[in-house]
Amino acid sequence: MFITFEGIDLSGKSTQIKLLKNYLEQNKKKVISVREPGGTGISEQIRDILLDKDHFKMEYLTEFLLFSSSRHQLTKEIILPHLRKKYFVLSDRYFDSSTAYQGYGGMIDLKIIKSINKIAAGGLIPDLTFLINISIDECIRRKKLMKKTEDRIEQKKISYYNKVIKGYLQIAANDKRRFVVIDGTKSVEDIHAEIVTTVKS
Amino acid sequence: MFITFEGIDLSGKSTQIKLLKNYLEQNKKKVISVREPGGTGISEQIRDILLDKDHFKMEYLTEFLLFSSSRHQLTKEIILPHLRKKYFVLSDRYFDSSTAYQGYGGMIDLKIIKSINKIAAGGLIPDLTFLINISIDECIRRKKLMKKTEDRIEQKKISYYNKVIKGYLQIAANDKRRFVVIDGTKSVEDIHAEIVTTVKS
Repeated sequence: MFITFEGIDLSGKSTQIKLLKNYLEQNKKKVISVREPGGTGISEQIRDILLDKDHFKMEYLTEFLLFSSSRHQLTKEIILPHLRKKYFVLSDRYFDSSTAYQGYGGMIDLKIIKSINKIAAGGLIPDLTFLINISIDECIRRKKLMKKTEDRIEQKKISYYNKVIKGYLQIAANDKRRFVVIDGTKSVEDIHAEIVTTVKS
Repeated sequence: MFITFEGIDLSGKSTQIKLLKNYLEQNKKKVISVREPGGTGISEQIRDILLDKDHFKMEYLTEFLLFSSSRHQLTKEIILPHLRKKYFVLSDRYFDSSTAYQGYGGMIDLKIIKSINKIAAGGLIPDLTFLINISIDECIRRKKLMKKTEDRIEQKKISYYNKVIKGYLQIAANDKRRFVVIDGTKSVEDIHAEIVTTVKS
């Protein structure tokens, strides 16, 4: 089963992935978790290019093609072989991130995003996607709490992130069978319980 | 004017680009030359990933998407601004390389290659393309002469290179208005003369 987690930075995706992974392991399931961009030697090198602060000249489409190449390698090298061996594969971001960030946020034609997403994922579609939704104000509040330094992609403007958040909600509304939208301001425990209930069913 | 040079390794592309660049400069033309993959800070980092010998697990489609991202960045950052300023832009490889190597050589559907090539180049098409054609035997002979060490892409098999060479000839046959096919076993001077005659006309 292929489960993906989506949402803007600091929405709590990686915490929830850890908790779900522990839960599944305690229930004797085979689980791996991966993150995007990254997850293979090649993809991690692509990640370094994507997050490099000096790359302020990077075009949106360059960015999207880099994400797509990293995604394809991760899919072929890690995700598909594990799904074949009946693992639960939990991914921190997958192609919906490109639709939200480079599509809704980045002004690339959604048709282009859709067609390249399909090619890069080799037709693979998550069985279940959790969208953990927080507002930009909540994201900024958490950032201040963590005194986090920002990478290239995080340095973009608030108006951009608002487009991304709206985009995510639109993507989820378009595919209600696959998506579960979760209020990211709930407690970590409540969100975990909601995720476990969904995965069980 | 956007002029590209295509052909397998050691066909003599870069020598001919240097000679044409000198010729145009002597005739008071504004000229720049670029190479693929590479030509911008971002694209050169992508080049490093593509040529890394340790990346033997790289999927053909990952490779193609990396080339495409590098190409897009080069096109937007360097090629288009110079064409607008009426430069001659000479490129060592452009999207025909992807069609030949990843398409004809690499078993990716040519329709996919075509559609992503168009997207990555932002619709730009070279005004003129020189295909310098040599056989794989000639390539091996030259390699031995140079005692050249091989990068990841060059380590592939002879059957692969034969597909690439045939692919190139097919691409040129499909677009005779843009392509000039040159016999790469001719002398450097003869090839240069042929190129200059074509560019003049």
